[in-house]
Amino acid sequence: MPSALTPADFEELRQLLARFAHVFDNGDTEALEEVFTDDGVIVLAGPGREFHGLAAIREFNTSLGELSPDHHTLDTVFDVDPEDPYGTVRARSRYLAVLPDGSVHNGDYVDVLVRTPKGWRIAHRRSVPRHPVRVG
Amino acid sequence: MPSALTPADFEELRQLLARFAHVFDNGDTEALEEVFTDDGVIVLAGPGREFHGLAAIREFNTSLGELSPDHHTLDTVFDVDPEDPYGTVRARSRYLAVLPDGSVHNGDYVDVLVRTPKGWRIAHRRSVPRHPVRVG
Amino acid sequence: MPSALTPADFEELRQLLARFAHVFDNGDTEALEEVFTDDGVIVLAGPGREFHGLAAIREFNTSLGELSPDHHTLDTVFDVDPEDPYGTVRARSRYLAVLPDGSVHNGDYVDVLVRTPKGWRIAHRRSVPRHPVRVG
Repeated sequence: MPSALTPADFEELRQLLARFAHVFDNGDTEALEEVFTDDGVIVLAGPGREFHGLAAIREFNTSLGELSPDHHTLDTVFDVDPEDPYGTVRARSRYLAVLPDGSVHNGDYVDVLVRTPKGWRIAHRRSVPRHPVRVG
Repeated sequence: MPSALTPADFEELRQLLARFAHVFDNGDTEALEEVFTDDGVIVLAGPGREFHGLAAIREFNTSLGELSPDHHTLDTVFDVDPEDPYGTVRARSRYLAVLPDGSVHNGDYVDVLVRTPKGWRIAHRRSVPRHPVRVG
Repeated sequence: MPSALTPADFEELRQLLARFAHVFDNGDTEALEEVFTDDGVIVLAGPGREFHGLAAIREFNTSLGELSPDHHTLDTVFDVDPEDPYGTVRARSRYLAVLPDGSVHNGDYVDVLVRTPKGWRIAHRRSVPRHPVRVG
């Protein structure tokens, strides 16, 4: 296990990844600043869309409306970045998405998480579908 | 992160939430006392049903029989109650339920978790469906 | 909570269980040695199949090919083995499997996890289906 992070860091990182689901799926766009950095990026590898910065992420969140799936995050493994062992963590998780019609999709979240003065935040999230579209 | 709780507390809280699934879904009604306080409450916001106290929760568990869904809990965020920072935690999680027909439902668990002489327990759980019934 | 394990042990154990999904589902057979002991065992209680040792587990993984479900692990409770409180942990988790056709199966993982010079590893995993086949 990486030695530069404390158990309290890992606990906060886990809660950060969990918080994404509650904030994003409830359309709580104000609180997205508790999840992403100001210059945070979401890349959707399936459709090939990208959102750069909090304003774009908020607009994306709002645009989904009632058709938005619910997100659930699990199976996270963390790797501390050796170039910045106290402040940058690379995480790989799975997501399970429940769509409005009840079908379930899954895939990988490949994240870069950074320590900021306000706490850990997602600086970059690459979302790669597995089912129904398996990539890579 | 709340400073009044230790990493060992968070680990125990996570295992408490996990234990619910194993105990409840296996109909291990005796062991429900390891999950809920004696006066524990479950509120099902969808159908508007409430169960007050261990005896009522046990009866509810037994009543479900073979039709009971399997429960899975994830995406938990914890907030320490500022009025009782060492002994009361508010947790918000997602559940994923697998029904006997294979369909998947999801929703929110809004819990009040309390420290007792026997360990952390669920004092109050409000279960709010998202799919197929989205509330709030 | 077991006192013989530190919060860092629990964090590593959680990441071990998460790593299984990424390694196995990506068919990264080399990396299976980061998940299982050399003499690791997988027992599939549903079909009654067993795989003994890393070579057999790797062959099983490869044999599944494109038909392999994706695995997700959650709801883990840990019990330290009183006979070996620093080196053996019994874990009970749920799995959620997403099949290539999008259907979702679930069940229990009953694991024996051991501390090795290279880190925690799965020594024995018994996978017991709940849906669509409920056992026990």
